Amino acid sequence: MPIITLTTDFGIKDHFVGAVKGSIYSELPDAKIVDISHQISPFNIMQTAYIVRNAYKTFPKGTVHIIGVDAELSKHNKHIALHLDGHYFICADNGVISLLIDEIKPKEIVEITIQNHYFLPFTLENFVKVACHIVRGGTLDVVGRKIKEIKKLSEFKPIVSSDNNRIKGNIIYIDNYGNSISNISKKLFKKVGKGRPFEIDARGHIFKKLYEKYSDIVTFSETTNSFTGKDGEALTLFNSSDFLEFSIYRSNLETYGGACTLLGLDYLKSIEVRFGS
Amino acid sequence: MPIITLTTDFGIKDHFVGAVKGSIYSELPDAKIVDISHQISPFNIMQTAYIVRNAYKTFPKGTVHIIGVDAELSKHNKHIALHLDGHYFICADNGVISLLIDEIKPKEIVEITIQNHYFLPFTLENFVKVACHIVRGGTLDVVGRKIKEIKKLSEFKPIVSSDNNRIKGNIIYIDNYGNSISNISKKLFKKVGKGRPFEIDARGHIFKKLYEKYSDIVTFSETTNSFTGKDGEALTLFNSSDFLEFSIYRSNLETYGGACTLLGLDYLKSIEVRFGS
Amino acid sequence: MPIITLTTDFGIKDHFVGAVKGSIYSELPDAKIVDISHQISPFNIMQTAYIVRNAYKTFPKGTVHIIGVDAELSKHNKHIALHLDGHYFICADNGVISLLIDEIKPKEIVEITIQNHYFLPFTLENFVKVACHIVRGGTLDVVGRKIKEIKKLSEFKPIVSSDNNRIKGNIIYIDNYGNSISNISKKLFKKVGKGRPFEIDARGHIFKKLYEKYSDIVTFSETTNSFTGKDGEALTLFNSSDFLEFSIYRSNLETYGGACTLLGLDYLKSIEVRFGS
Repeated sequence: MPIITLTTDFGIKDHFVGAVKGSIYSELPDAKIVDISHQISPFNIMQTAYIVRNAYKTFPKGTVHIIGVDAELSKHNKHIALHLDGHYFICADNGVISLLIDEIKPKEIVEITIQNHYFLPFTLENFVKVACHIVRGGTLDVVGRKIKEIKKLSEFKPIVSSDNNRIKGNIIYIDNYGNSISNISKKLFKKVGKGRPFEIDARGHIFKKLYEKYSDIVTFSETTNSFTGKDGEALTLFNSSDFLEFSIYRSNLETYGGACTLLGLDYLKSIEVRFGS
Repeated sequence: MPIITLTTDFGIKDHFVGAVKGSIYSELPDAKIVDISHQISPFNIMQTAYIVRNAYKTFPKGTVHIIGVDAELSKHNKHIALHLDGHYFICADNGVISLLIDEIKPKEIVEITIQNHYFLPFTLENFVKVACHIVRGGTLDVVGRKIKEIKKLSEFKPIVSSDNNRIKGNIIYIDNYGNSISNISKKLFKKVGKGRPFEIDARGHIFKKLYEKYSDIVTFSETTNSFTGKDGEALTLFNSSDFLEFSIYRSNLETYGGACTLLGLDYLKSIEVRFGS
Repeated sequence: MPIITLTTDFGIKDHFVGAVKGSIYSELPDAKIVDISHQISPFNIMQTAYIVRNAYKTFPKGTVHIIGVDAELSKHNKHIALHLDGHYFICADNGVISLLIDEIKPKEIVEITIQNHYFLPFTLENFVKVACHIVRGGTLDVVGRKIKEIKKLSEFKPIVSSDNNRIKGNIIYIDNYGNSISNISKKLFKKVGKGRPFEIDARGHIFKKLYEKYSDIVTFSETTNSFTGKDGEALTLFNSSDFLEFSIYRSNLETYGGACTLLGLDYLKSIEVRFGS
């Protein structure tokens, strides 16, 4: 039976997540439900997209992903369901899908038409019904009306200079360790850079090297049998999601801080990569 | 197999929740366990009741709900199990059940008698044993002694004035978005108001309108293709649990705040509904 | 099918935990995955050990425990898998196992050798592969090379004075209620104390009594039908994990604080037990 995943900004204190799960189990007693995140900042669809894009691919094909962020149904915030990259996504047509994918074309998109009354966001009633329908093997055209266009957001995309020597990007996500993650992908970096030397300018902090992994910044001393030095040193690398990331080695947001605080690289701050000749 | 749900004030950092699940799986390898919330403020049975009452009904009949809040066994804090509205509840006799239900009469109540030693609260040893017993199809009288009375709390109930023109209520819950939720139900509001005009006084903020949904406070501009204006505006509505709620449109507690902070409507603050003639 | 548990410092906002679960379900569609904690302070293996040691025993024998803390693979931070006390543990060889067990000897230890490329920590790719292999009934020698020694840490162990009259310990964990938990076990206390009178010195606060349970510090008044007095009073007891714990009755870290703040008993602070004659 296909898995249903949940990504919301509901938090985990309130009854909302439990109630959504209860509704699913009431329809589908053997459902397999997996939480991706409920800690999205309220209404933040950029964060949502970053989290879902990095999680969904690890699930088996056919998984149904419910995205309950900024999902109150209204004339201008329709509910949609998509078949995309072998997975199903159920969400509001608020632009989140355009941030989630690069060029992959959805195989099918429908505007959900099964609701017959207004919709309070936290129950996700529509989404649950559609998800259970898909899990039972139903097709999208039964629960919605085929559409071709969904809302596209072009903010949050990196910009390449006309001479191909610079990429301007932004911080799009701060992770649990305070690492600041930009919207510059390894693919774009390689395509524009073509192996040239580079410098990365992050609010005046200049980086000229990309590390392979976090611990490459430290060296192990055989004498002391421990790592030397560089706790607290800044580094850049492409993270496990292949985005350019700024990190402080062994950072801890609760104590001395992370890249986001120590380098001032908060959400939406701009960075620049400059390639030399 | 019936689901077992968990609602506790254990938090999610410590081993407590994991240990309770381990104990259940050790007794019942195929158990289905669903977390409702572990983020209850320590010992807060009002919060507990609000969360459980809104979540439990979405689960299939026969579900077993473990409530691990203020549950240290003592002579004056007995352990009980109830069959109520088609569901089973296992908790301490600390009044939480009286806050959870309005008039529904329990079909059966027992004082749990299987413990044979004192009880450290975080293991929920008794509750796990009783839950597994029920899931296996066992009856309550095997694990406890039938009782008729449980502790009742009358605090936290709204008060209707003798002339039926006013309802005094309190804020009983702050949700993840900083919305302030009162103990005044839609049912009571309609019963007392009988369709009369009203004003709601929340610490000097006067509301004369109830919205149907959050986004009704904004208007969509076809010219700009976006919603206009009212982020940050206060509104009142009956929420998805049918309680009178005070909300700031698209509030965010991490940044500019929610109704609880911006209107000063913290936990237990009083509000008043006045009906005109 | 054996359960797989997860203990990490990933937090629950990012996609990391969801991605690990997705990877497991992709290999093993019917996997049973249980979260123990994802809220470990970054890189804190002492916390990790405390949580895992108290949770793992409640699970059925044969359970596979993935520990994703301080787990970036490097020449000096190898990946290991152990068969220990009937359970399997998969983690980095960073000393966490030596903090987790007292004298129990592992039945088998392997250094995991299946990885063929460098390793970004958040995907736990190696750990997932090994866990699924074990769940399918595979043996450790297929995924690793037998070793005999793992890293041992002797910090964080209590010290008994040479005259057997004192135990010096440290606070090793602060729980959700702000209780401060030391590394002095009931077993050690009894072995050294041999029933003698004692005083416990916690930063100048002297305790001469151990309570059996938290509520033993309050007394119930039949007159007022409620507990009298001692909210906010400090007590010591052996907690449900049999470690010496300092607690404030009905403490609440969000409001008036817990033992960790009110008694100044933060993480790593030292305490002393003195036995009289």
